[in-house]
Amino acid sequence: MINEQLLNPKSIVVIGGSDDVQKPGGKVLKNLIDGNFKGNLYVANPKMEEVQGVPSYKDLKKLPQTDLAIIAIAAKFCASTIKLLAEEKNTRAFIILSAGFSEENEEGEKLEKEIVEIVNSVGGSLIGPNCVGVLNSNYNGVFTTPIPSLDPKGCDFISGSGATAVFIMESGVPKGLSFSSVYSVGNSAQMGVEEILKYMDESFDPETSSKVKLLYIENIDKPEMLLKHASSLIRKGCKIVAIKSGSSEAGSRAASSHTGALASPDVAVDALLKKAGIVRCKGRDELVTVASIFMHPELKGKNIAVITHAGGPAVMLTDSLSNNGLDVPHIEGPKADALLEKLYGGSSVANPIDFLATGTAQQLGDIIDACENDFDNVDAMAVIFGSPGLFPVYDVYDLLHEKMKQCKKPIYPILPSIVNVKDEIEHFLAKGRINFPDEVVFGDALTKVYNTSKPQAEKIEMPEVDKEAIRKIIDGAENGYLSPEQLHALMDAAGIDRAKEGVADTEDEIAALAKEIGFPLVMKVVGPVHKSDVGGVTLNVKDEETVRSEFRRMMQIKDTYAVMLAQMLKGTEVFIGAKREDKFGHMVLCGLGGIFIEVLKDVKASLAPIAKQEAHEMIQGLKSYGIIKGVRGQEAVNEDKFADAITRVAALMKVAPEIFEMDLNPLLGNKDAVVAVDARIRIEK
Amino acid sequence: MINEQLLNPKSIVVIGGSDDVQKPGGKVLKNLIDGNFKGNLYVANPKMEEVQGVPSYKDLKKLPQTDLAIIAIAAKFCASTIKLLAEEKNTRAFIILSAGFSEENEEGEKLEKEIVEIVNSVGGSLIGPNCVGVLNSNYNGVFTTPIPSLDPKGCDFISGSGATAVFIMESGVPKGLSFSSVYSVGNSAQMGVEEILKYMDESFDPETSSKVKLLYIENIDKPEMLLKHASSLIRKGCKIVAIKSGSSEAGSRAASSHTGALASPDVAVDALLKKAGIVRCKGRDELVTVASIFMHPELKGKNIAVITHAGGPAVMLTDSLSNNGLDVPHIEGPKADALLEKLYGGSSVANPIDFLATGTAQQLGDIIDACENDFDNVDAMAVIFGSPGLFPVYDVYDLLHEKMKQCKKPIYPILPSIVNVKDEIEHFLAKGRINFPDEVVFGDALTKVYNTSKPQAEKIEMPEVDKEAIRKIIDGAENGYLSPEQLHALMDAAGIDRAKEGVADTEDEIAALAKEIGFPLVMKVVGPVHKSDVGGVTLNVKDEETVRSEFRRMMQIKDTYAVMLAQMLKGTEVFIGAKREDKFGHMVLCGLGGIFIEVLKDVKASLAPIAKQEAHEMIQGLKSYGIIKGVRGQEAVNEDKFADAITRVAALMKVAPEIFEMDLNPLLGNKDAVVAVDARIRIEK
Repeated sequence: MINEQLLNPKSIVVIGGSDDVQKPGGKVLKNLIDGNFKGNLYVANPKMEEVQGVPSYKDLKKLPQTDLAIIAIAAKFCASTIKLLAEEKNTRAFIILSAGFSEENEEGEKLEKEIVEIVNSVGGSLIGPNCVGVLNSNYNGVFTTPIPSLDPKGCDFISGSGATAVFIMESGVPKGLSFSSVYSVGNSAQMGVEEILKYMDESFDPETSSKVKLLYIENIDKPEMLLKHASSLIRKGCKIVAIKSGSSEAGSRAASSHTGALASPDVAVDALLKKAGIVRCKGRDELVTVASIFMHPELKGKNIAVITHAGGPAVMLTDSLSNNGLDVPHIEGPKADALLEKLYGGSSVANPIDFLATGTAQQLGDIIDACENDFDNVDAMAVIFGSPGLFPVYDVYDLLHEKMKQCKKPIYPILPSIVNVKDEIEHFLAKGRINFPDEVVFGDALTKVYNTSKPQAEKIEMPEVDKEAIRKIIDGAENGYLSPEQLHALMDAAGIDRAKEGVADTEDEIAALAKEIGFPLVMKVVGPVHKSDVGGVTLNVKDEETVRSEFRRMMQIKDTYAVMLAQMLKGTEVFIGAKREDKFGHMVLCGLGGIFIEVLKDVKASLAPIAKQEAHEMIQGLKSYGIIKGVRGQEAVNEDKFADAITRVAALMKVAPEIFEMDLNPLLGNKDAVVAVDARIRIEK
Repeated sequence: MINEQLLNPKSIVVIGGSDDVQKPGGKVLKNLIDGNFKGNLYVANPKMEEVQGVPSYKDLKKLPQTDLAIIAIAAKFCASTIKLLAEEKNTRAFIILSAGFSEENEEGEKLEKEIVEIVNSVGGSLIGPNCVGVLNSNYNGVFTTPIPSLDPKGCDFISGSGATAVFIMESGVPKGLSFSSVYSVGNSAQMGVEEILKYMDESFDPETSSKVKLLYIENIDKPEMLLKHASSLIRKGCKIVAIKSGSSEAGSRAASSHTGALASPDVAVDALLKKAGIVRCKGRDELVTVASIFMHPELKGKNIAVITHAGGPAVMLTDSLSNNGLDVPHIEGPKADALLEKLYGGSSVANPIDFLATGTAQQLGDIIDACENDFDNVDAMAVIFGSPGLFPVYDVYDLLHEKMKQCKKPIYPILPSIVNVKDEIEHFLAKGRINFPDEVVFGDALTKVYNTSKPQAEKIEMPEVDKEAIRKIIDGAENGYLSPEQLHALMDAAGIDRAKEGVADTEDEIAALAKEIGFPLVMKVVGPVHKSDVGGVTLNVKDEETVRSEFRRMMQIKDTYAVMLAQMLKGTEVFIGAKREDKFGHMVLCGLGGIFIEVLKDVKASLAPIAKQEAHEMIQGLKSYGIIKGVRGQEAVNEDKFADAITRVAALMKVAPEIFEMDLNPLLGNKDAVVAVDARIRIEK
């Protein structure tokens, strides 16, 4: 419900604005003034006629019509004020800075609901309460500093925590990160991170919209909305980087006590963000570094030229990149030789391209030109250039800026000398550039970006399952575990291969059943409890004759009233599981069976539905993937069938959300098939 | 060969000092002057009588007696200058800033050797060439900036790269890290990182010496020296943190081309640093963060109180700590209730202790006092306190400083608002404090410190092996693989259990052999190539009678001239390997066999010799350790026997360094024994 009045108000009133700039009401007014807000600015303050040079209304009824109200008065006065503004002043956007609402107690929660109703009733926008405000190139509607440099092509930043928003900006601003908008959503009474992302998706304009989104999230309230719009934005060419804090049990407890919301299981969060194509970060520094990378042209390949005037940082960066999946490829050939000619003796162009402590701006230009035009095995350049403090390096950074404008390949500036050439770096940042002061922090972030999967497709093609049959079984089932018959019928309806089995009590029936299931077979008596002890189990039955003779023998065994036949299968034990995770829907897991789950915890998870390609990525992401491919002459598991079974389990969850958990453990996989030999499904309607 | 003249010179001459402070000779002089060097300062410059106000000698022969010469003239003039200084001016310490030596070409290498000989001949100290110099509280002998704050209790920093030393200081200085000494060793002609560490160890004084050492290493030339003195320093109470760059193949290539030295295998480097008890870092930011942690009182337990006035960073820090082995324990009870009473409504003391955005210095003091005195389950405090920019926070940071002086438990200040309260943070740092601006960078570093093993013991107790027998076998062996007889004899001499086996060609002999080896047994014909095909293999022979009858049967088989008996073993496949790694000595590896090596690369390595405790740590560090402990009713592997075998392999390597590689793969481990069933040893003398 973001509207024009929130984005680009023609008039703003600060309710509770004062001269005390150490208070939110005074400080937000100061920020609005300092930011040269172009529209009409008013204050409502019962004691003042002018505040910080701005006209103040003692009686709210006298206030002119106003688009946006920024509210910094005690919680208990908010509802009536908003009602008056909405009804009489045509105010359609509200930012409530005040605390004392749902985050504090039940009374506050009631107040908050009341306010949302009023705002909704006039189709208005509400940000907060309990937030630091909103910031964009039209107005500085926050009561905090720093105010970052605002630029329509900067990052859009949505934060579930006000203080953290401030601290993230304090990490980004000194490095040159610019912002297009900042939303501190506070209690998310009407709009949370999800709604704002939805708005950004639905209003996306490839020409004018910012392409980089930063999120700080403590609680994912609407996972489906987040997934839908984040992945949509990324498919449209955006990049999204997020912190979702509370990944540990203790952290989750802390986040819950902080937001009052129930914790989301982190494995589901991780699966969601992965599926959306969001780069997940753990901390502010990492978040800002990834965002800074996103502000550069897209990295289109894995080959990085490390250009440096100092050996050490180049080696550390090369380690970081190549230990995590990127390449610092060897550069050689006539064009490399020609470049080397232009550098001082002792330089190296083999990559890292080291043009020595004495290297000049001119030489850096030659190197960048060669990487841009001559070296096909270079997709991007990381330029490391600091200073031991002997002389200024303006010429180098000016050259770098120019080359960054000209080149199509991304150039990442790593300028470590934040003390020695502080002024030169500031001069460089003032041109809109961003600095990566630490090469390893940069390298780790770049590999993280490179290793993040693409978002899910807009439409996920699901395997065909017999929906009608599934619904019939589920609708007829009670809560609890399904019976073997229900289980088998459900698996058959979902198209999940299972070990064939059957029971018969006449010789002809058992012979027919054997033919249907196929050899080899296992035969077991039905009736006796300790089947092996009474000679009631026969393995590896290979022909009808044996089926018949064993049947006759078994039927003589005490208590036996029938004989069970089952496919005798060989293969590697794998497993597929599914579990309902509250608002996240169903999480589907896969891996190898036995110790691989129990000891090595080698499991990959995603959220249903799952496309075939994604199922393959899950399997290929397993640490034990080598075993599935076949190792040391051991037979491989049919990966395609395994992936198919994963997509079928996921599809089953979409048709039968009443399934609380499902375990196929193990399935036996060989080169021909992946077949479930044991299964459990629990229903919770 | 560090001497008093290098550490605390009474007089310094800058050879090649000039007025041009953009050149090393001019800049180092300026730094010496700016640092108020207390002794006599001279310049040698053939064209000047005074340089920057310092007397300059056109003729070196006229120079007074001088302790230390800092040399910034062309490489070719260095040797003769040093000779004159050493012979005529009683100069006993030399820092050569100039480049153009071994790093450039063979001629330079010769010059370098010549200089080392001259310096050694008078028992002098030599730092460099090709370095940025030396810095301590007596003099600023570097040509670079920044000059960090110097304090005998600050860090000692030794760097294998000059530019990297500068960039590391630029990362540390703004956070408040102070230094006791900085050595840039350049080409390490006489002294490298190892020698300086050795000096620090041998001259260590628990009262006056700095306890924190930072190392930046591109090449470990003397691993044994490094291990010996680093672990010795740590046992004396020091903390050492190091970057060894070149961990990746590409990085290692880059480092080699940079230093001209052969790359060290990274797994050996890692094993070495681990054995020494050194915390290994990947980048400058991490290095500086760990060093900053080391500048605080020692963390004595795993329980951290996270104290904050903002929720978000506390949650992220809690995630970082508790996802990596530290605890943020729940705090409750009457004393917690009493503390809560002192805070504003809405605060939480459950840990994170959140005293809200409105929290005061007084409240922070109460919280810290409670953590220090009342909460036994708190070992350290992390205090997060930033500012949204409304009012100054001097009072809070002053209080924090006071509490840090009083408390025994470490208090780590996390002050994220490096923009908003820049002045307050600088004021805090000016008192000698250090800031951790990013809570997750801090958290990750703290867990890394906590998870670093103690250094090896001073004396490693090795298992008893029959040295005489081992030497006899090795001395008698040719290069290449040992014969089965040699192999068995060697394993027996080293006390490594192996599957017992033997060959006999008479029935009585075989019966006696069977008794000796013990049942059950495997019997195999000796002679025929395809033993199974001719019925020449019998498994699980359980008594003498069967041994005799099978022997008689087997001897009838064509080409059979004898029968082999071997222990029939059951157990989990594990492996132990050893490999000579040039200067690092022998690396010993262990793990589970089969797919665990091939697919999961689940291997732990250390360097010989290995103490029993360390072998246990290796085993316990395996991802598959759960399998060794026994899982799902599967029998455990006798960990003590496994560890014993590892120490025996390591001991064997110390007695027989001619062994190039050794593989025990597999050993079969069960609850009683760990026995090698296949082995290979390759000798390379």
